[in-house]
Amino acid sequence: MSEIAEIIIKMEITALERWNNGDPSGFLEISDKDVVYFDPMTELRIDGLESLTELYENIRGKIFVEKHKMLNPKVQSLDRMAVLTYNLESYVENKVVKWNCTEVYQRQSDEKWKIIQTHWSLTNAVKEL
Amino acid sequence: MSEIAEIIIKMEITALERWNNGDPSGFLEISDKDVVYFDPMTELRIDGLESLTELYENIRGKIFVEKHKMLNPKVQSLDRMAVLTYNLESYVENKVVKWNCTEVYQRQSDEKWKIIQTHWSLTNAVKEL
Repeated sequence: MSEIAEIIIKMEITALERWNNGDPSGFLEISDKDVVYFDPMTELRIDGLESLTELYENIRGKIFVEKHKMLNPKVQSLDRMAVLTYNLESYVENKVVKWNCTEVYQRQSDEKWKIIQTHWSLTNAVKEL
Repeated sequence: MSEIAEIIIKMEITALERWNNGDPSGFLEISDKDVVYFDPMTELRIDGLESLTELYENIRGKIFVEKHKMLNPKVQSLDRMAVLTYNLESYVENKVVKWNCTEVYQRQSDEKWKIIQTHWSLTNAVKEL
């Protein structure tokens, strides 16, 4: 695995572990001010860290995931951008919720990586439209 | 709008218009051989153009969208990568299906842009988990 892939996956897992304990700040702290965001509850794409913070503050302390499995993470990187994709299984009260996830990270001028795009969706949300 | 944004959005609309007429080749022709792909029907991320072609050949000639509205397309670009996000309304038989879409395009050595990541999901697939 490339050095960039290792860095990106480690950042994502660290944020996920905080998320699973009700703390959305792990993701907020590594999201760019111009981040764009989709999840299966939003009516439209959410633009900007301020709007994402507002969304996440509403669920702070409300989401607890007992364990998760990140399946087959892949990082496609070029220059200062890296695309992380993976499937995720979240275990909550003996139920498993399955996710598709795409994160786009960008390396800032201070060499730190920040998320500029997040897309969460439910795996197999429909069998047929 | 930047020149890159114009190019990317035009490519996407051209592929969408073919898609709406049952022809998935518009997307296949502009997807990289190492493309990764999510949609709400897949069980896991699909890796590679060969697997995506197999998926799309099964639905060739079966999907017809009467009209679509691409809402608020945004392109975040840096060097040789560009992230296109938008919401899409697809009108089929007096029904509207709403989508979230993230495409990551990469500029190849021949200066042509190719999709390296596609993520389709249904907007507002769940009100609450």
